[in-house]
Amino acid sequence: MSFTIQNVLIATNDDYLTVDVQVVDGKIAAIASDLEVIGTAVDGSNQLLLPGFVNAHTHSSEMWQRGIMSVLPLELWLAELYDFAPLDLEKVYLSALGTAVETLLSGGTSVVDHLVLIPGQELETIAIAVRAYQEVGIRAFIAPLIQDQSLTAGLPSGEFVQNHQPYFRPTAATLEIIEEAIKQFHHPQAGVSMLVAPTGIQLCTDALFQGCIELSDRYDLCRHSHLLETKAQEKLAQEKYGCTAVEHLHRLGYLSDRTSLAHCVWLNHTDITTLAQTQCTVVHNPLSNLRLGSGIAPILKYLQAGVNVSFGCDGASSNDSQDLLEAIKIGSVLHNTTDLDYQNWITPRKSIDMASLGGARGLNVADQIGSLSVGKQADLVLYDLTKLSLLPRTDPIGLLVLGRPTNVVDSAWVNGRQIVSNGEVNTINVDHLRQELFNRSQWEINRKSPTIAQIETHYRRVMEI
Amino acid sequence: MSFTIQNVLIATNDDYLTVDVQVVDGKIAAIASDLEVIGTAVDGSNQLLLPGFVNAHTHSSEMWQRGIMSVLPLELWLAELYDFAPLDLEKVYLSALGTAVETLLSGGTSVVDHLVLIPGQELETIAIAVRAYQEVGIRAFIAPLIQDQSLTAGLPSGEFVQNHQPYFRPTAATLEIIEEAIKQFHHPQAGVSMLVAPTGIQLCTDALFQGCIELSDRYDLCRHSHLLETKAQEKLAQEKYGCTAVEHLHRLGYLSDRTSLAHCVWLNHTDITTLAQTQCTVVHNPLSNLRLGSGIAPILKYLQAGVNVSFGCDGASSNDSQDLLEAIKIGSVLHNTTDLDYQNWITPRKSIDMASLGGARGLNVADQIGSLSVGKQADLVLYDLTKLSLLPRTDPIGLLVLGRPTNVVDSAWVNGRQIVSNGEVNTINVDHLRQELFNRSQWEINRKSPTIAQIETHYRRVMEI
Repeated sequence: MSFTIQNVLIATNDDYLTVDVQVVDGKIAAIASDLEVIGTAVDGSNQLLLPGFVNAHTHSSEMWQRGIMSVLPLELWLAELYDFAPLDLEKVYLSALGTAVETLLSGGTSVVDHLVLIPGQELETIAIAVRAYQEVGIRAFIAPLIQDQSLTAGLPSGEFVQNHQPYFRPTAATLEIIEEAIKQFHHPQAGVSMLVAPTGIQLCTDALFQGCIELSDRYDLCRHSHLLETKAQEKLAQEKYGCTAVEHLHRLGYLSDRTSLAHCVWLNHTDITTLAQTQCTVVHNPLSNLRLGSGIAPILKYLQAGVNVSFGCDGASSNDSQDLLEAIKIGSVLHNTTDLDYQNWITPRKSIDMASLGGARGLNVADQIGSLSVGKQADLVLYDLTKLSLLPRTDPIGLLVLGRPTNVVDSAWVNGRQIVSNGEVNTINVDHLRQELFNRSQWEINRKSPTIAQIETHYRRVMEI
Repeated sequence: MSFTIQNVLIATNDDYLTVDVQVVDGKIAAIASDLEVIGTAVDGSNQLLLPGFVNAHTHSSEMWQRGIMSVLPLELWLAELYDFAPLDLEKVYLSALGTAVETLLSGGTSVVDHLVLIPGQELETIAIAVRAYQEVGIRAFIAPLIQDQSLTAGLPSGEFVQNHQPYFRPTAATLEIIEEAIKQFHHPQAGVSMLVAPTGIQLCTDALFQGCIELSDRYDLCRHSHLLETKAQEKLAQEKYGCTAVEHLHRLGYLSDRTSLAHCVWLNHTDITTLAQTQCTVVHNPLSNLRLGSGIAPILKYLQAGVNVSFGCDGASSNDSQDLLEAIKIGSVLHNTTDLDYQNWITPRKSIDMASLGGARGLNVADQIGSLSVGKQADLVLYDLTKLSLLPRTDPIGLLVLGRPTNVVDSAWVNGRQIVSNGEVNTINVDHLRQELFNRSQWEINRKSPTIAQIETHYRRVMEI
């Protein structure tokens, strides 16, 4: 776990420096010119070293339905997703591997998996995802996705009376499963952390949020949730609570400096102030927000209010890739259309900072990862600046963020362990993974979702389409 | 130039078929099951065959400044661009090669190069770009970028009196150069077509537009131009003409079924109707429009009005890649946020159609390329569906458009000539190109543009920032 990267380009505040970087026992030990070689010597010439990014929100098993989901807004898309969700542990394992590989090859060394659980096999689902991430060696934050209300409860009622099936399991039983998962799988030192992660206000009772707060406090865990992804959810919050979702979650005590909230598209000015005051992190999933027509999250306003923002790919059924550099690019340039004053726009350097340190902050590990700082864990990525997509040579970070980098990650380390070398993940057999993904799927088209047929009329009425 | 692709997946109206495709003398001769092998047999198993896309608007030499351009709106960005534009024929050659390679490896077989001309070496600039495209073998549409007003004339004046330097060359002299270029380089049968291409209303007099119309009529050429890319241009048109830019260009006679217009962000309802009536093509450059904060072009409205729409990467200083699949993805999903009714959203199949047949229509060659039709030229692309980024297997076109395909183009043909094989451009030495791009550039950062310093105060005042 000790090595020295020589003659590598790193970013300083407003320039670049060529330095050596010593890593000893998994930690960054020194960054300076002409350092003594400790451990293996790594040639960093014509390469850029950055801290690993965080894929701060995804759902790994959605990879099985990427490319095929209909072009629909979240509420109908979700119905189709659940109608065809794979309920198979082997598939969960393979898609977690795939998610880890795509994240790594686009600069991510950490992944937050808001993990869809197979009903009746919840602990087994978590176990197999943990196994996949540990095999790859990526830093994993497992956020088991829980709810205690049925799908249709996630739609606003409007003027119409709606009846919903009760959820199949009592809230307390769900919380017991999560507590058991925490006991079994929460091992931050081994690179696996558990988060509490109710899916969001649209499908969860207060009791579920409160139970998660209690677990988070008792076991010192971060909190995660979707928040106000769609206009429909904004309506629903008013119906359910008579106030905004942020006001309600704040009252419940869910918002904190270790709470990260995915999407945050439909917040008002007061809500934004609340997120800033409570020191929450917004996870921006720009591609998913576009594909599902959810809207453009007011990211420039978050940044101006001092809210920490990081990037996520979101699940591959709503993106449909796990390429972090793509999410970073689009999640940066998208907002230039929302503010005439270009002095507020996100620069490539700011994007990189959001993706690395911003991601770490949202997981309460900014003291351990997220920047090239002596003493931090060596979660590092080396980019090959001689690749065609990063040429001609100009500003390396500009090329990385604003271009469309292809095959540019040469090496990646997590905790000082090298898991990508020569552009390939070296901890698992990726070719075998590819074969498995191929063999367990088939080309298909035009599925018909029975649940959409049930809810579409109501959806269109209540959304006034 | 004769070959037969066997067992390849092609898209039918709403499904896929596995077929053989015969190409004889550069044309598609037959598409059916179990065809006799004519010429070379190509194994199409587990591959998807699509018509080549058109990169319908770019500026190749901008590749030299990708990654480094400041985060600025078009008008200031343009000042910086021109301050640092490379004026070197060898660089024009290399960036044309690079543009062709990136376009090909993302599914494009045609490129429209709105080519920035080196002052005093206009014909040489065109000649060297033509040479580059012919060496690669991509179908090239050369649109020499001309203007006859100075840069500052492109800004609205508002309430302020502005004086502009006269342009360095008279309009007639510029038109003479273009006519000479047409005579020398317009060889559609050899894969090189010339277009007339005034930069846009912001920097061109009526005389220049009229001269271009005349040349277009005399030599039977398509017409190209930027149109209403920014809010500043919308203001400028009102100042300059007392009407919208579309009304003015319509009156001049520039709008026609062989006119393609890049950007079209700031058009009103009447303008859109005019584009539909005149059968113009809108070239959508979504990534450039986001990076420069120009806005979101009302593409769903164009489609509803029956306007033909195609995709462009735009120059690599405003994108900063030449990856057409990226432009197609973002140019499709972006608009889901502009219309609550998902029934109007662009499906992946529609996107593919816009990128291929839409591109061909905009160049008046829809009878020759743009679809897999017997009798058309064989401008074809074969995608390898076993690549990780296109797995698991679901809907191949969905994966291609909505994912983030990497290394997926296995083969490409233009006019039946194979110019990509095994994922590599085989007509030029790409490794040598890479070396040249590397050697002729250096990592840099933080340039100061003198022209921005001159115009920024006025820009902010007139745009009320």
